[in-house]
Amino acid sequence: MVSNVTSKSKSTNLTNRARMLVSCPDRPGIVAAVSRFLYEHGANIVQSDQYTMDPEGGLFFIRIEFDLDNLDARREQLKADFAVVASEFNMKWSITRASRKKRLAIFVSKEDHCLLELLWHWQSGDLDADIAMVISNHDDMRGLVEPLGIPYHHIPVTPDTKAEAEKRQLELVSGQVDVVILARYMQIISPKFIEHFPNKIINIHHSFLPAFVGGKPYAQAYNRGVKIIGATAHYVTEELDGGPIIEQDVQRVSHRDNVEDLKRIGRHIERTVLARAVNWHVEDRVIVHQNKTVVFS
Amino acid sequence: MVSNVTSKSKSTNLTNRARMLVSCPDRPGIVAAVSRFLYEHGANIVQSDQYTMDPEGGLFFIRIEFDLDNLDARREQLKADFAVVASEFNMKWSITRASRKKRLAIFVSKEDHCLLELLWHWQSGDLDADIAMVISNHDDMRGLVEPLGIPYHHIPVTPDTKAEAEKRQLELVSGQVDVVILARYMQIISPKFIEHFPNKIINIHHSFLPAFVGGKPYAQAYNRGVKIIGATAHYVTEELDGGPIIEQDVQRVSHRDNVEDLKRIGRHIERTVLARAVNWHVEDRVIVHQNKTVVFS
Amino acid sequence: MVSNVTSKSKSTNLTNRARMLVSCPDRPGIVAAVSRFLYEHGANIVQSDQYTMDPEGGLFFIRIEFDLDNLDARREQLKADFAVVASEFNMKWSITRASRKKRLAIFVSKEDHCLLELLWHWQSGDLDADIAMVISNHDDMRGLVEPLGIPYHHIPVTPDTKAEAEKRQLELVSGQVDVVILARYMQIISPKFIEHFPNKIINIHHSFLPAFVGGKPYAQAYNRGVKIIGATAHYVTEELDGGPIIEQDVQRVSHRDNVEDLKRIGRHIERTVLARAVNWHVEDRVIVHQNKTVVFS
Amino acid sequence: MVSNVTSKSKSTNLTNRARMLVSCPDRPGIVAAVSRFLYEHGANIVQSDQYTMDPEGGLFFIRIEFDLDNLDARREQLKADFAVVASEFNMKWSITRASRKKRLAIFVSKEDHCLLELLWHWQSGDLDADIAMVISNHDDMRGLVEPLGIPYHHIPVTPDTKAEAEKRQLELVSGQVDVVILARYMQIISPKFIEHFPNKIINIHHSFLPAFVGGKPYAQAYNRGVKIIGATAHYVTEELDGGPIIEQDVQRVSHRDNVEDLKRIGRHIERTVLARAVNWHVEDRVIVHQNKTVVFS
Repeated sequence: MVSNVTSKSKSTNLTNRARMLVSCPDRPGIVAAVSRFLYEHGANIVQSDQYTMDPEGGLFFIRIEFDLDNLDARREQLKADFAVVASEFNMKWSITRASRKKRLAIFVSKEDHCLLELLWHWQSGDLDADIAMVISNHDDMRGLVEPLGIPYHHIPVTPDTKAEAEKRQLELVSGQVDVVILARYMQIISPKFIEHFPNKIINIHHSFLPAFVGGKPYAQAYNRGVKIIGATAHYVTEELDGGPIIEQDVQRVSHRDNVEDLKRIGRHIERTVLARAVNWHVEDRVIVHQNKTVVFS
Repeated sequence: MVSNVTSKSKSTNLTNRARMLVSCPDRPGIVAAVSRFLYEHGANIVQSDQYTMDPEGGLFFIRIEFDLDNLDARREQLKADFAVVASEFNMKWSITRASRKKRLAIFVSKEDHCLLELLWHWQSGDLDADIAMVISNHDDMRGLVEPLGIPYHHIPVTPDTKAEAEKRQLELVSGQVDVVILARYMQIISPKFIEHFPNKIINIHHSFLPAFVGGKPYAQAYNRGVKIIGATAHYVTEELDGGPIIEQDVQRVSHRDNVEDLKRIGRHIERTVLARAVNWHVEDRVIVHQNKTVVFS
Repeated sequence: MVSNVTSKSKSTNLTNRARMLVSCPDRPGIVAAVSRFLYEHGANIVQSDQYTMDPEGGLFFIRIEFDLDNLDARREQLKADFAVVASEFNMKWSITRASRKKRLAIFVSKEDHCLLELLWHWQSGDLDADIAMVISNHDDMRGLVEPLGIPYHHIPVTPDTKAEAEKRQLELVSGQVDVVILARYMQIISPKFIEHFPNKIINIHHSFLPAFVGGKPYAQAYNRGVKIIGATAHYVTEELDGGPIIEQDVQRVSHRDNVEDLKRIGRHIERTVLARAVNWHVEDRVIVHQNKTVVFS
Repeated sequence: MVSNVTSKSKSTNLTNRARMLVSCPDRPGIVAAVSRFLYEHGANIVQSDQYTMDPEGGLFFIRIEFDLDNLDARREQLKADFAVVASEFNMKWSITRASRKKRLAIFVSKEDHCLLELLWHWQSGDLDADIAMVISNHDDMRGLVEPLGIPYHHIPVTPDTKAEAEKRQLELVSGQVDVVILARYMQIISPKFIEHFPNKIINIHHSFLPAFVGGKPYAQAYNRGVKIIGATAHYVTEELDGGPIIEQDVQRVSHRDNVEDLKRIGRHIERTVLARAVNWHVEDRVIVHQNKTVVFS
């Protein structure tokens, strides 16, 4: 249906573009070693960000985008060579190719705003990823998804079938996707599922100043007369809504906004924040350390 | 010292300007009755805001600024006349004169940023109020306050002298001030003190998404890697930090901001939010209903 | 295709909801007269906003939403009755029914972001209007539009055919639509066309601090190193991009954003600002006075 | 008077902290060379930011904060050694000590808001600079400045005495200050004066979307009904208000804000934007390239 909407690639030619992420205990010589390594291998640094978590534990983080001729053929050797440097500095590291787009599974329930936003960014070429599939516990979104050529899997979930449903989900995503996006998926993910995607499941949820516990948070926010509502995108860990925060944003509201208005505004923030978080993740801009993120946005 | 900084009046001539605040159960005819009353008394409406809290209890709120010739001489009669209208509609109401500036007592401890901001707005003529006194449990700010001609009262507070200190504070403010501003005053106000100033004590405190319980909230926020920090100005009620919210605002932060940076940014938000809240209060723009505010800003 | 995406109505029952817009020279008694009129006709005021442009010409503006039983049958009489009040105060005025959704024609060229945003708000029920048709000088968006059941008219425009094309456009929209949205329509609208839709054509364009004249504004903004880019939605008048501003917004950028990034961010602001402006227009929240707007948002 | 307001140092001990700024044509090996140099000299990199202006001219920019034992004694040798590296890569560069605070001259006329904000940041320890003097063409601010121990020079300026006045200003600042801040100084600075402080004079001025030429910009903005007003801090060049932009910010306004409100809001944005720009400048976070800035904030 939208075959005439040409997917614009964000960068015309990224065949030789690589991204290196490193975190390690801070000590003199890290940047010298890494930059010398890249220089001697003929790489050209395109962008580089680093951060020293100095007083709080001495961790050092660096993200480098570089171009290297003939990257595809040389990358295994490159990795083998870098392992020597990495070992000397006790580094956690990764080198990924920009041309190898990450594959997403989007989980969704009945609310469509986050899914639509991701589809929109994807169609416009602003989301540098492949959407491998959409999985939902309802069938409502099929008509939005299939015409775009994206497989849609309807896997109903009831208390009785929850384990079975998750097994089916795992079969679908295992080896097929790099990231799972919970785009207002209203089921709790089990620790077992999370284990398969450590810091690779991104969730979005509403956020308030102050926070409200219990049900109907928008009604509570209305009754308390909050002036600001927000949303938080985070990696999913076993602690419900307690994983590393990737992105947050807020919008002003007033007494004139009733509960329905707050929900509508909330939806707008959620879709914006989730899209930003997913974008940064697929461009390897996020490093997780303990329960927080370093985002080289 | 700053006697050469002429205090610019926000409005050149407000002698005949009045502000009417009304809240009452909603029903047809309220606006007709109020506007007819003002028209027949020869008042000229300058600004009017209203709000119907329709589905949630049927409350109606209105704020009207009007000019009335010879206001000072006629206001007692005006109030007596309006009481008849008010009675018919079960109104809570007030009519105040814009020229009768509210008198503030500012309570402060060791952090000066909120006090300085209020002094700055006051000196520049943007805060339409009189600062009757500054009260502190420390002597540190005396040098900032007294040169401006504002009385400074140092009332130390220890667990043993707390009751005595509050008694002394009450003596100072009783009948002398209309509003108490807690400009980073780090002592808890007793219910007895609050009783004397219902919805007339304004406090400022930091706010986070999510909220953090326990001590050292900035350290907790840093460890959780929040991307947004904020501040909330609210009326003080017996429930600690749980009173009606007047204003909130936030600012983006990142992993690069350490705990000290977060505190510094927090101070900037606090002073801005508090100044806005105080401004709205002294201009009679805030109506409290149950535990929330209607702000006609 | 998206028939399963139920269009949620913004308000459950607006059959009896009306909106009154009034502007007139300010003088005492206006509010009293209007509110008495509504009261005596049995109307219940739901929301009311007013504004006195006091020192600058003495104009008075009021917007009232009210409910009136049996509105549809009584509205002609209501208007006839109000004409008497209006005449006394020299009012420009309108009374519209909320249930009578405004009909939009969306004009678009090759960029889809603004069109997609409007379609998204419309599908989600957040845009309280009917999209009567999409008109484009290209055929690219047909696949986006027709599956939603919206007619798509491809009217090519060349210098030679411009007059003929506009004639065809006018035939399509005349009597069929209330508002024309230029959603990145890259052709200049003739004064004759504008005459048919005074203050009823809404355009969106980029905006910079400072402004840049001449071509390639994003390249100029990049070379100047601006830190903020924005967008402006305005009514179209004969003066190119000089009509009354409805809404503006901005986003921070930095030296890291290249020309393509600026354009991408600009697209995001444009779609957000245009959607807001259209929303306010279709809910009768905008009054134009001379070359500026009063927006009761 | 405010001697009891202890100036909190932003960082407890910066004796050995240095900041290196480099810009040069991009080519492989720069980071490797710089980081190797620092490593071999025993420096510990605390913060590092870099930026490649890749497609637009191939410039490369880097800012490194590092600690070096015994910095004061070794810095001349360090510079001599680095000159060799710099020469190889055609670098423009500087190495400054964090402990050597920059000295400011603040120029002011009759509006005090920008001066007050800078004084406030300075007193609170958030502005890492020394205020060497305040120069004004009026005597109004003397009472604000002298009690803080800062010299105040009143140099009246008339068309006849302008040249003479500027000569006197130059005598005062030459060799005494590193940066000149025009904190709402309402006189045009001559090219000759600017020559003495290339990219070292910071000015603040209002900014609008769209821009307004001619006098009374706030009145024009009001008449056009702008929804956003802003301010721009920039380095002063011979082209009036056309120099490299350091920082910009904006605030929403509405039809309710009259010309005086717009001016008041404008003052608030101006003081905030100027303070940020000055802060970044004194911390060596700004590199100027052609007519734009790279700000490593």
